[in-house]
Amino acid sequence: MPQNISRNPGRHFLQIPGPTLVPDRIMRAIDSQLIDHRGPEFSKLAKRCLEGIKTIFKTTNPVIIYTATGTGAWEAAFVNTLSPGDRVLMVETGQFATLWKAMAQNLGLKPEFIPGDWRTGADPKQIEEHLRKDKAHEIKAVCVLHNETATGCLSSIAAIRKAIDAAGHPALLMVDTISSLASTDYRHDEWGVDVSIGGAQKGLMLPPGMSFNAISDKALEASKTSKLTKSFWSWNDMLNMNKQGFFPYTPATQMIQGLAVAIDMLHEEGLDNVFARHARAAEATRRAIRAWGLEILCRDPQFYSPTITAVLLPDGHDAEAFRALALDAFNISYGTSFGPYARKYFRIGHLGDFNDGWILGALSLTEMALGLAGIPHKKGGVQAAMDYIESSHSRAARAAAE
Amino acid sequence: MPQNISRNPGRHFLQIPGPTLVPDRIMRAIDSQLIDHRGPEFSKLAKRCLEGIKTIFKTTNPVIIYTATGTGAWEAAFVNTLSPGDRVLMVETGQFATLWKAMAQNLGLKPEFIPGDWRTGADPKQIEEHLRKDKAHEIKAVCVLHNETATGCLSSIAAIRKAIDAAGHPALLMVDTISSLASTDYRHDEWGVDVSIGGAQKGLMLPPGMSFNAISDKALEASKTSKLTKSFWSWNDMLNMNKQGFFPYTPATQMIQGLAVAIDMLHEEGLDNVFARHARAAEATRRAIRAWGLEILCRDPQFYSPTITAVLLPDGHDAEAFRALALDAFNISYGTSFGPYARKYFRIGHLGDFNDGWILGALSLTEMALGLAGIPHKKGGVQAAMDYIESSHSRAARAAAE
Amino acid sequence: MPQNISRNPGRHFLQIPGPTLVPDRIMRAIDSQLIDHRGPEFSKLAKRCLEGIKTIFKTTNPVIIYTATGTGAWEAAFVNTLSPGDRVLMVETGQFATLWKAMAQNLGLKPEFIPGDWRTGADPKQIEEHLRKDKAHEIKAVCVLHNETATGCLSSIAAIRKAIDAAGHPALLMVDTISSLASTDYRHDEWGVDVSIGGAQKGLMLPPGMSFNAISDKALEASKTSKLTKSFWSWNDMLNMNKQGFFPYTPATQMIQGLAVAIDMLHEEGLDNVFARHARAAEATRRAIRAWGLEILCRDPQFYSPTITAVLLPDGHDAEAFRALALDAFNISYGTSFGPYARKYFRIGHLGDFNDGWILGALSLTEMALGLAGIPHKKGGVQAAMDYIESSHSRAARAAAE
Amino acid sequence: MPQNISRNPGRHFLQIPGPTLVPDRIMRAIDSQLIDHRGPEFSKLAKRCLEGIKTIFKTTNPVIIYTATGTGAWEAAFVNTLSPGDRVLMVETGQFATLWKAMAQNLGLKPEFIPGDWRTGADPKQIEEHLRKDKAHEIKAVCVLHNETATGCLSSIAAIRKAIDAAGHPALLMVDTISSLASTDYRHDEWGVDVSIGGAQKGLMLPPGMSFNAISDKALEASKTSKLTKSFWSWNDMLNMNKQGFFPYTPATQMIQGLAVAIDMLHEEGLDNVFARHARAAEATRRAIRAWGLEILCRDPQFYSPTITAVLLPDGHDAEAFRALALDAFNISYGTSFGPYARKYFRIGHLGDFNDGWILGALSLTEMALGLAGIPHKKGGVQAAMDYIESSHSRAARAAAE
Repeated sequence: MPQNISRNPGRHFLQIPGPTLVPDRIMRAIDSQLIDHRGPEFSKLAKRCLEGIKTIFKTTNPVIIYTATGTGAWEAAFVNTLSPGDRVLMVETGQFATLWKAMAQNLGLKPEFIPGDWRTGADPKQIEEHLRKDKAHEIKAVCVLHNETATGCLSSIAAIRKAIDAAGHPALLMVDTISSLASTDYRHDEWGVDVSIGGAQKGLMLPPGMSFNAISDKALEASKTSKLTKSFWSWNDMLNMNKQGFFPYTPATQMIQGLAVAIDMLHEEGLDNVFARHARAAEATRRAIRAWGLEILCRDPQFYSPTITAVLLPDGHDAEAFRALALDAFNISYGTSFGPYARKYFRIGHLGDFNDGWILGALSLTEMALGLAGIPHKKGGVQAAMDYIESSHSRAARAAAE
Repeated sequence: MPQNISRNPGRHFLQIPGPTLVPDRIMRAIDSQLIDHRGPEFSKLAKRCLEGIKTIFKTTNPVIIYTATGTGAWEAAFVNTLSPGDRVLMVETGQFATLWKAMAQNLGLKPEFIPGDWRTGADPKQIEEHLRKDKAHEIKAVCVLHNETATGCLSSIAAIRKAIDAAGHPALLMVDTISSLASTDYRHDEWGVDVSIGGAQKGLMLPPGMSFNAISDKALEASKTSKLTKSFWSWNDMLNMNKQGFFPYTPATQMIQGLAVAIDMLHEEGLDNVFARHARAAEATRRAIRAWGLEILCRDPQFYSPTITAVLLPDGHDAEAFRALALDAFNISYGTSFGPYARKYFRIGHLGDFNDGWILGALSLTEMALGLAGIPHKKGGVQAAMDYIESSHSRAARAAAE
Repeated sequence: MPQNISRNPGRHFLQIPGPTLVPDRIMRAIDSQLIDHRGPEFSKLAKRCLEGIKTIFKTTNPVIIYTATGTGAWEAAFVNTLSPGDRVLMVETGQFATLWKAMAQNLGLKPEFIPGDWRTGADPKQIEEHLRKDKAHEIKAVCVLHNETATGCLSSIAAIRKAIDAAGHPALLMVDTISSLASTDYRHDEWGVDVSIGGAQKGLMLPPGMSFNAISDKALEASKTSKLTKSFWSWNDMLNMNKQGFFPYTPATQMIQGLAVAIDMLHEEGLDNVFARHARAAEATRRAIRAWGLEILCRDPQFYSPTITAVLLPDGHDAEAFRALALDAFNISYGTSFGPYARKYFRIGHLGDFNDGWILGALSLTEMALGLAGIPHKKGGVQAAMDYIESSHSRAARAAAE
Repeated sequence: MPQNISRNPGRHFLQIPGPTLVPDRIMRAIDSQLIDHRGPEFSKLAKRCLEGIKTIFKTTNPVIIYTATGTGAWEAAFVNTLSPGDRVLMVETGQFATLWKAMAQNLGLKPEFIPGDWRTGADPKQIEEHLRKDKAHEIKAVCVLHNETATGCLSSIAAIRKAIDAAGHPALLMVDTISSLASTDYRHDEWGVDVSIGGAQKGLMLPPGMSFNAISDKALEASKTSKLTKSFWSWNDMLNMNKQGFFPYTPATQMIQGLAVAIDMLHEEGLDNVFARHARAAEATRRAIRAWGLEILCRDPQFYSPTITAVLLPDGHDAEAFRALALDAFNISYGTSFGPYARKYFRIGHLGDFNDGWILGALSLTEMALGLAGIPHKKGGVQAAMDYIESSHSRAARAAAE
């Protein structure tokens, strides 16, 4: 921001990997006067949300809606299904996997952490091998992030399901889909996930303050013998009250108002169109990065994330300084870096409610910021992104015409 | 609502005991576009809230802000300070005290419940006697609701503090101030409370989705040896991150936007004026009830609540049927009834952002609804309320003139 | 407002005779991002409004939508149909009739003003007599306010139509329905009105900034020979462009967004229910005034207004001082007084988006303000209003049950 | 928009030359509950706006605020100062000049139209010559558009002032600054303009529905003898009422709420920074167009507009088809074409509340749309725009460092 200015014009380019920009229509639904959360009108609204959210997780089972952010839903997944001392298998995909592991420890579980270099997704084979060794079936849950928000690596949940089955292991499968849900295909039922953990503030286009547990029958069964203490997070009370469209304690009513609209909007666009839009933005972003001659943190294309792309800077360049400069000069925010690569990369979020023009604007700012920051790069990144997006539209137009 | 109408005109009279109507100014602050919750602008906003909320609890110690409703903050108070099997002294003031006790059990604590008839507040003498018997100081906490939301009875926290001190007992004092904070005087520090539990959706005039733990040094000390498992609720991570104006995980950013404005508005009105306004509405409501010839659930004036008044219906009249009729005919919502008095009373909330005209409108609807429902009562309730409010203004005007 | 307070809690009682409180749903529709006012989406929206507004005026003819307040629509009615020097017959019902007459003079017309005492509506017989004398048919228009906003007197347009016909006079009939439209029955076609002038900020529940001309074929015909200069107000350009859902110049797009919702809301409630609600509030208000022992400005019940009631204060009491006191002490605004009765009365608006509870709140504040101001009156006004409203509901309930 | 989609994700690229995207902060100010437009709170607000708007026009004289769009303010300028049959000198810069001329005729004035080819601004020399010939000083006003919205050509008002003075002619100078005000430097007083006509929905970043007349003492003097009929547009009533912060009739109160914030925001950014931002976007846009090998409608750089750039398409390509394709494929709206160049060009608006990223997003969509539409062009337009913007920032950073 130039000197002597106390306001940034235009809309901030919020390219962090969530929370994402909230569409006006959702904001206006949140901005409605409160109604009795125990009355008939609210009950109708809540039922609509409780049914609707199932279509987003692709499940016919109940989905629990928490007034809490994703971290709370992580905790809920554990305390409802496991008991003190239970072994859980987790995979070190990055910072969020590491935080989730730390939570397991805090709650008295015994996490086993398959090590990773923070540049790929989870390897189903390693999971299978690890489980095969557990002949006594002491491992009670396998916990994986669908999309590691810290690195932009997406794991194949379908393949992990197969790996567990191949090992003949009865462990529950718990999946964090916080930064992938409603942005790329996710199939709770078909992939045999037992607890899917989701959040409001990414693909669902809501502000933060709401999170989810989609649960399988097997998880529900496990909850009956689970011995970790639970009260606020208890599925049981929730499931009972939800049947009437109510909650055991006051829910975040305005988030529920927003959720109803968010689900409508996703279906109005069409989930497959939503996924295609994210995939297009992700590929455009990667092409820009390659054209700049920079390196993508995710080192194996099979793990490329549709929602977040992390960009490594050349040695000697500080990613935090770059982020500060870009914010100051161009009013754009990126995600920060973590762990072994702290200060070495920045993350571009391309998820939520955006369109082609917006992403190209963000990439333009990035290309210029690289220039201002004196980071060695080639020009042409935006051009490469535009070429790709234009050709996608041409193909789509041809397909529609045929 | 008459037939053939699918819309209710005007503003709904939301007289439940919270959530309360949210002022437009707060709603518009919530209805603002998202910013980076790890960026400098958000840090400034969060610090402003973290400082400001202290002035509402009247404490110089830190206040933890949770993305969760009050129930979550109850849990946080327990898991941060206590260990499995700890004895806690609780008082049966009504439904919410009963729920909190159930939570203590769920979390592996051993609550001892001083029985009550749901028509008064907590008796400091009983607490003192109970504690005196605990010579070994095995009771680790005394837990009381400042205002029992289910019955409209307010307890004296200052007197309970004295009772604990008189017994020479080291137990922590935990107080639920959810339906009293920012509506009547509350003094975390002066009254020696160790954990004060507050919520956003009552006197703070925000939507639900945020709750608080105000903590004493003693509570903080207790947290170092507490053995209940904790992760999401952990004070420690919060206190560390809050110093920089950040949170260990994504907070409900829009609620933070609203909170900043809510604190401003309370101070613009003046906390003492806010309290006087609530007291005036409460007394006006009680005078109306007496004029109608009906009975107030709270049977001892020393416990009258400034925020909620529960009205007993004559025998043979179903309070749920009355609530449904009032909602249908006059677009007014009351709070429901619980426990031994289920279906025997309804609750009038008079808290949050209201004024004299609004309360008189609500009482007018109530008087008419009693008529429509055929509930035996005398007229003149609204007149009595008006007489009282008018005389309050006369006194205030005279006082200002002198 | 007490001392040391810089904010008034709760919702302001805006009981002026318009602008009225705008429902949240309309406000949120206005609070939507702009779209191309020449694009297909806007065209669809505009067509929906242009059709919908006809149902409010009860006409099948076009209605012109102006970006201007009612005064502009008055001017439009004149300049589109009349020529310099034309005689027009107007009736002195009060301040707004007087202003409209002054406008006629400013525009070079020759108004003839049937005198009135500002305490009744227009007398059809006087109009008939006046027209009968104009054998040469030099009078080109009869201009009447359906509801005189300054006094709360409603004239019978059906009776005036009959009077004109009885005189066999070809003058155009122009009616200001600004403070009656969408609050009481109005029938542009059936009553043979040639130009109906409406505004957004009263019964239509929108903010000010939009006004209307509903026009008859006869008025349209007259516009072809009219010689008053016109450009911005020209019907012709409007009618041409409106066919495609566009406007000759940029319209107030956000008001159009709000108008679409306002029309929906009126029909969701049902126009007859809207009218009954206004009639009920008006009668309740009059009963309160009578119980107070005060005088209603409108001295003949046949002219009672369903939207505005003016209250005369006893001699020696200044209505402006009363209004200031009520605003200061009770956060309620009334309409001011004009002309021969300036400072002698205040006006209570009971129109737009309100409900029974709101009106009773407003009357309660008024009764208390009379007390605080030391204006001689009896108590019991609110009680009388409540008795009436309760009995209306009883009757409605019985009728629905039969 | 692809098939099977009923919603466009992200924010629409509204690149028409106004109305422009309205900042959230202004929208939220408009989205506030109504207050009494005759009460003390409104008076304070109105005075703040009436003073503030002067700083935007750079005048110390009063500015009239109309509830109407710019067309109304054109009419107001004429009817307040001129008399039937008055000669006025106008310049054919494009469609809006032509419309204004037609209005002059409709109002009974005698416009003399200096012909133009729609590809430049007004030529001061031609004006001077024309005035010199009018020895009798029968021409009463010179009327020019500062920025011709239809073509993107900016005229020098300072030079035109000099031309009039050089001719020693007493005609009033009337300037339409609708699409330039608050986007590029404008100096009502210094340039000796007699009536400046402005609108809300461009640089002022408000929705449409408000317009302005900034007036000189000379214009005010002329208004005393002006004989065109006027009522709604009369300056006199306005000036009288405005002194107390009121309006002769109900103003568009919510637009006034928005205006107060808009003026604040412009000064927070700094007017010179606002102008520099517009200039930078305009030059970036022109460089893109040149890189594409396309022609800018404005054929002389001295007339380049800082707010609107019109792009000529090669022969045989229909600009309306291009606009429809771009809207459909990329969710971007451009301005349409007029007059001799109808269907031959489209207009890119770069005004109001935007930033670098937004403009580059819009140019990216344009470059891709040219490709999809099969319009012959070279790639590299966005690259050229980025190079320019990046270098501007480098220069600014260097300047700030020195």
